[in-house]
Amino acid sequence: MKSEDRILLAHGSGGRLSRELVESVFGKIMSNPILDRMDDAATLKLEGRLAFTIDSHVVSPIFFPGGDIGRLSLTGTVNDLAMMGAIPLYISAGFIIEEGFRLRDLEIIAGSLQAAALEAAVQVVAGDTKVVGRGAADGIFITTCGLGSIPQGIMLSGSGAIPGDQIIVSGTIGDHGAAILSHREGIEFDAELKSDCAPLGALVGAMIEASPNIHVLRDPTRGGVAATLNEIAYASGVDIEINEEKIPYRSEVRGTCELLGLDPLILANEGKLVAFVAGSDSEIVLETMRKHTFGSEATVIGMVQNQASSRPRVYARTLLGSRRIISMPTGEQLPRIC
Amino acid sequence: MKSEDRILLAHGSGGRLSRELVESVFGKIMSNPILDRMDDAATLKLEGRLAFTIDSHVVSPIFFPGGDIGRLSLTGTVNDLAMMGAIPLYISAGFIIEEGFRLRDLEIIAGSLQAAALEAAVQVVAGDTKVVGRGAADGIFITTCGLGSIPQGIMLSGSGAIPGDQIIVSGTIGDHGAAILSHREGIEFDAELKSDCAPLGALVGAMIEASPNIHVLRDPTRGGVAATLNEIAYASGVDIEINEEKIPYRSEVRGTCELLGLDPLILANEGKLVAFVAGSDSEIVLETMRKHTFGSEATVIGMVQNQASSRPRVYARTLLGSRRIISMPTGEQLPRIC
Repeated sequence: MKSEDRILLAHGSGGRLSRELVESVFGKIMSNPILDRMDDAATLKLEGRLAFTIDSHVVSPIFFPGGDIGRLSLTGTVNDLAMMGAIPLYISAGFIIEEGFRLRDLEIIAGSLQAAALEAAVQVVAGDTKVVGRGAADGIFITTCGLGSIPQGIMLSGSGAIPGDQIIVSGTIGDHGAAILSHREGIEFDAELKSDCAPLGALVGAMIEASPNIHVLRDPTRGGVAATLNEIAYASGVDIEINEEKIPYRSEVRGTCELLGLDPLILANEGKLVAFVAGSDSEIVLETMRKHTFGSEATVIGMVQNQASSRPRVYARTLLGSRRIISMPTGEQLPRIC
Repeated sequence: MKSEDRILLAHGSGGRLSRELVESVFGKIMSNPILDRMDDAATLKLEGRLAFTIDSHVVSPIFFPGGDIGRLSLTGTVNDLAMMGAIPLYISAGFIIEEGFRLRDLEIIAGSLQAAALEAAVQVVAGDTKVVGRGAADGIFITTCGLGSIPQGIMLSGSGAIPGDQIIVSGTIGDHGAAILSHREGIEFDAELKSDCAPLGALVGAMIEASPNIHVLRDPTRGGVAATLNEIAYASGVDIEINEEKIPYRSEVRGTCELLGLDPLILANEGKLVAFVAGSDSEIVLETMRKHTFGSEATVIGMVQNQASSRPRVYARTLLGSRRIISMPTGEQLPRIC
């Protein structure tokens, strides 16, 4: 394959060129015994309770500091499985590609996806490729679907938060959103701002082993921590209070937010989680998280106050000691962040 | 919701409008206890061998005679599961929508997808919605992922064909491809040409019950019967011969092909299957298929001749008695057929 080669409409036709593309790119990069059978569906053997999820990825730009759409597509779906307490196992990926897309870029993206799959210890077992004409899509969109196994006794849900739960974030907030936005806007810092894009299955596995009293896990992607906390408050029927002072940010993220007039709490994260843990177990969970690469900066940012008497609310105790409502973000400013 | 309402970028932001869209469209139309939990992943209980598949759908136009992109997205994935002998059970769906898309059209499409899910006896248990700016996608793309349970003892694969197998098609060939192409080109017939878009799980279930000697099942979608037979010949290492006279077409399909200079064997089908069955069982399988709505015109079109001595080939015995090679289609002419 030559570096100047580009995707043609016929690569999506189901004919000879489709076959060649699948064999020379996906078959070569992602080869494993299940995928290599190239049947209409992958055959798997699994027992017990499963987690099943899907996410389409339309991030722009497709290459960004700290990752690309391939890595993001894998980690985004793996993390959704992990948030259910599941051990991520199998991934399927559907590619929608614009005619004229560079084959070399497709190889790089497939390579990133596969590298992230190895890092997350999952296998890509099924795939599909469609091609649309020039101008009918913007480069490449990737939809990934994930399948994981939920260990016996694990019951996590956004509706599980109860008063007294400590709220932990696994590290600095807003890195992914700020990296994409500053890259798009051409904002530069001394230290490069990178997406946090990472698979969290191993971190979650260690947390679950450390404590049976984790009530909710969520990855604050689109809509950021603000949306995630509002969703959990709403699903669990509780009021939440976080302490602004405790929220960890990188200085570059704070800088980007000041320049663009954004609240870091609404920025997407792609390698962070929010955990609601019974007060008695928050120390042991924190300790466990801090031993892990992707949880080394874990910290408690707030707690569940009470059952909501009317509409569930998320409050922030400000640096000045007053209390403000963190509302569900409206989101107009942040298209195509993941 | 007003009929003139349109999708905004903020509908894909993960914030308030995302939530409203999910609740007012998908939550209302596809409601079931698993989906309604709105967690990061659906939780399922399954045992044994599973089939797992993914398909992106980019068909243009999105509304066509006999179906729309919603129905197609559901049946396409259900049929991939059925071709592995699996009982289709669960579906997840990822929507990529262009800013400005009509909300009313989204409701119609979600309704078609759900109606097809009921017809196929599957549940949509997980979903995702992304919105891209005007011009960054062409209306709507839907990626569906399917999960099915493979009954004990069932082992179907494209590599299972052996000499002596009879090749059965479940009905007329090329309906979907011809319907899309004639609609695009503005070709009209007295009788409307409709897509055959239908879920084949129940048909396959009956076939498998009737005979343990079905070796291969495939749905001849993109690339048509020509691509499917070539793939099976290649995967199984056999030579195949079909009889042109035996291939069932609607006269409108033949007409479309004559007008556009296409071979009906390369047209996509979305509600048909090709079965390779041991000669001894072909009669009982045919009889079973013909009792079923989606198999009433099932017929034998050829057989597996021998192990391939060199490159596996698909031959057609022509009406004149000569033999021509059916090669893997190149596919340039047929973009966005599914």
